[in-house]
Amino acid sequence: MQPDEFRRIGHEVIDWIADYRERVGDLPVRSQVEPGWVRSQLAPIPEQGEGFAGLLADLDRVVVPGTTHWQHPGFYAYFPSNASLPSVLGDLLSSGLGVQGMLWSTSPACTEVEQHLMDELVGAMGLPERFTGGGVIQDTASSAALVAMLAALHRGSDKWRQSGVDGDETVYVSSQTHSSIERAARLAGLGEESVRSIGVSPATLSMDVQALTDQIQSDVDSGRRPILVCATIGTTGTGAVDPVREIAEVCARHGIWLHVDAAWAGPAALCPEQRHLFDGLEHADSFCANAHKWMLTAFDLSLFWTAHPDVLVDALTILPEYLRNSATESGAVVDYRDWQIPLGRRFRALKLWSMLRWYGLEGVRAHLRGHVELAGLLESWVEADERWELVVPRSLSLVTLAHVDGDDATRAAMDAVNAEGSAFLTHTVVNGRFAIRVAIGAEATREHHVRAMWDALRSA
Amino acid sequence: MQPDEFRRIGHEVIDWIADYRERVGDLPVRSQVEPGWVRSQLAPIPEQGEGFAGLLADLDRVVVPGTTHWQHPGFYAYFPSNASLPSVLGDLLSSGLGVQGMLWSTSPACTEVEQHLMDELVGAMGLPERFTGGGVIQDTASSAALVAMLAALHRGSDKWRQSGVDGDETVYVSSQTHSSIERAARLAGLGEESVRSIGVSPATLSMDVQALTDQIQSDVDSGRRPILVCATIGTTGTGAVDPVREIAEVCARHGIWLHVDAAWAGPAALCPEQRHLFDGLEHADSFCANAHKWMLTAFDLSLFWTAHPDVLVDALTILPEYLRNSATESGAVVDYRDWQIPLGRRFRALKLWSMLRWYGLEGVRAHLRGHVELAGLLESWVEADERWELVVPRSLSLVTLAHVDGDDATRAAMDAVNAEGSAFLTHTVVNGRFAIRVAIGAEATREHHVRAMWDALRSA
Repeated sequence: MQPDEFRRIGHEVIDWIADYRERVGDLPVRSQVEPGWVRSQLAPIPEQGEGFAGLLADLDRVVVPGTTHWQHPGFYAYFPSNASLPSVLGDLLSSGLGVQGMLWSTSPACTEVEQHLMDELVGAMGLPERFTGGGVIQDTASSAALVAMLAALHRGSDKWRQSGVDGDETVYVSSQTHSSIERAARLAGLGEESVRSIGVSPATLSMDVQALTDQIQSDVDSGRRPILVCATIGTTGTGAVDPVREIAEVCARHGIWLHVDAAWAGPAALCPEQRHLFDGLEHADSFCANAHKWMLTAFDLSLFWTAHPDVLVDALTILPEYLRNSATESGAVVDYRDWQIPLGRRFRALKLWSMLRWYGLEGVRAHLRGHVELAGLLESWVEADERWELVVPRSLSLVTLAHVDGDDATRAAMDAVNAEGSAFLTHTVVNGRFAIRVAIGAEATREHHVRAMWDALRSA
Repeated sequence: MQPDEFRRIGHEVIDWIADYRERVGDLPVRSQVEPGWVRSQLAPIPEQGEGFAGLLADLDRVVVPGTTHWQHPGFYAYFPSNASLPSVLGDLLSSGLGVQGMLWSTSPACTEVEQHLMDELVGAMGLPERFTGGGVIQDTASSAALVAMLAALHRGSDKWRQSGVDGDETVYVSSQTHSSIERAARLAGLGEESVRSIGVSPATLSMDVQALTDQIQSDVDSGRRPILVCATIGTTGTGAVDPVREIAEVCARHGIWLHVDAAWAGPAALCPEQRHLFDGLEHADSFCANAHKWMLTAFDLSLFWTAHPDVLVDALTILPEYLRNSATESGAVVDYRDWQIPLGRRFRALKLWSMLRWYGLEGVRAHLRGHVELAGLLESWVEADERWELVVPRSLSLVTLAHVDGDDATRAAMDAVNAEGSAFLTHTVVNGRFAIRVAIGAEATREHHVRAMWDALRSA
């Protein structure tokens, strides 16, 4: 494809996306197709090139019906995955430049724009100063958790790089921590038995610090080696917030790496009125917040900071001959390949940069505050309805509710709303009780959407 | 940004990329900037949104001078990273749709288009039938190697998931294998001591199977547990090809997982005349080829197949309550989150699909064959010049050469060409000798570019 063809077809693609975004709210949120339908509609890869029109036609005919629409204003499932249009254009520029930023020298701008933004966000989010210079973009919070764990293992043992894990390492999560932490322990060779699941307060679902303290002491007494604690600010199930400051004190006593996972709630740190949720973060060893969830940035872009980039790099680096270069050897540059699982890397900072410049920090804050406000409205409506109740307190823009008649009624209402197509809700289980999660956060969601979803739930 | 604004600005962005691609050949391939220059040019994140013009201006003013141009026709460094324009548009569509395909149900099309293409490529590349149904897109070959290793560990021990690694596992590579395999062993908790680096034939740099056989036997005799052998088809240094069939026989005797890394050379399997390089692949347990290197697909998109998807999924799966859904529980669908390190995933198949439909299989073959032919020309020119010689035989489109006067002369010539700006070459070390790698593979590279680079090398 020559640049002039790209110019013409590219305009069509842009228009296709604009049209899609204009009409996405009229589509059923969840795809209605049966397993195998999409495949049944697809042609073999052609031997001869066929132009672009067929692909665009198949998008309309097959892909759109086969898609669950994460950008739909009625998407309240999981957590939002904002793919704001300026971030889409930033990502397009990244693909168009086609650079691969594994080393500083393979594209200095790819590295330095990222360093600049990650340092700027330390200030904008009120993060601890010790994270300055320690920021890097990861693909997802799962990968961020894994690299944090590897850094913790390396800090915990001089011989981890050479000899691997010992089998006496232990890792601490709460019963509400995201499954990616337990999975990271498995991938790192620790086994699931190394993971201690600490109980939570039944009222808030936040980690029980006394139970954590006791478990760590018990492990130390029996010769185990505590490596990492993961505290969460905004759990996936209900948005619970672990007491980071108290957890940090326990970690400090035992020299344990404290990773703070704020994959969803992290962007709220841009709003001074929410900073209290991040109390104690200055004692964390690493911190993760996903720009690709609630922060208007097209998937995938996870913001990760560590106070110990030297440890992280030392854990992950390897330098074969074919990657040697004078810039690296000068020590004057950062090579981000040593900060992540893959070797190669996209210029992801471009989609973050374009989003931040388009909206400005005030625009992003308005986006976050708007959803918190809508969730507050929903919360007030639930409280005013005697047939429904909040299962746990609202957390930012996440409302977790259930019908007073019990699990069957709650599930039936959720299923009815999901079947109707104008909203998509998912569930969790809280203290054994089935509950609906309403995660407000799509860019296009307005009060009338939330009102309609609530009316549908009540009448179901 | 509203759809109508996106339409207008999107057209400008498309035009910017078209202009960039039209002029990229006139820019110096390598960025000429000093460490820190890019950062020094960047403004703070604005408080108020500022539109898109400033970003585009900064691309011209800061990013382009700060970029090493991987799409430049004079890019012969590392391996190519083809970001063909139809794949750029496919990736744009992925961002525009903004779906997150962690589960089948979160976007059936994201999963099923990928399944379709991966199965189709089994046929198109002449891959073993046992890979059908076992294909998945990974971000990079490094991640592919890591998931292969985790699957191998799980297959090798019933208790790996629960108890982690034992410390007696061993992994086998050659001295020429990509560093990502040793790194994967470190990340998986095995430690570098678990990795046996097997010697190679000095003439071809392919793995010495007798040495491999002896090392495995010696390890087994001393109570170690061989887990994985990585064979490479097209090593990073020189494009060497390991004898997969013979290595597979050794693996079969000991029940060892055979991972075949063809990150760069893999797409050549689309050409029947190159299939001999893949002899024995039907005995491999997993196989990796990067579409984002030499196969016209914008980074990142690594093609990975395993003959044992059940083992892979069992190694990586974890199912918390908030991800439960009826489609998953029916068993009728694939949830690709269980096939990879991250949880979330982009609709990467779109950029592969758009590329394959635009060029057709014949177009991709023509791309590959054109580079092999250019490398053959360069090979003939080197052979005809008594001051230069091939250090190892040409491998596909990779030519590894050195000046007969020794390392200083070779390095000086490379540095002179790189400083001049119209070509970018990197190096390797072969049997202790400094050698220039000429990896031909940019989409725009033509004979006159290779000729000019060769003339520049000779006159340097």
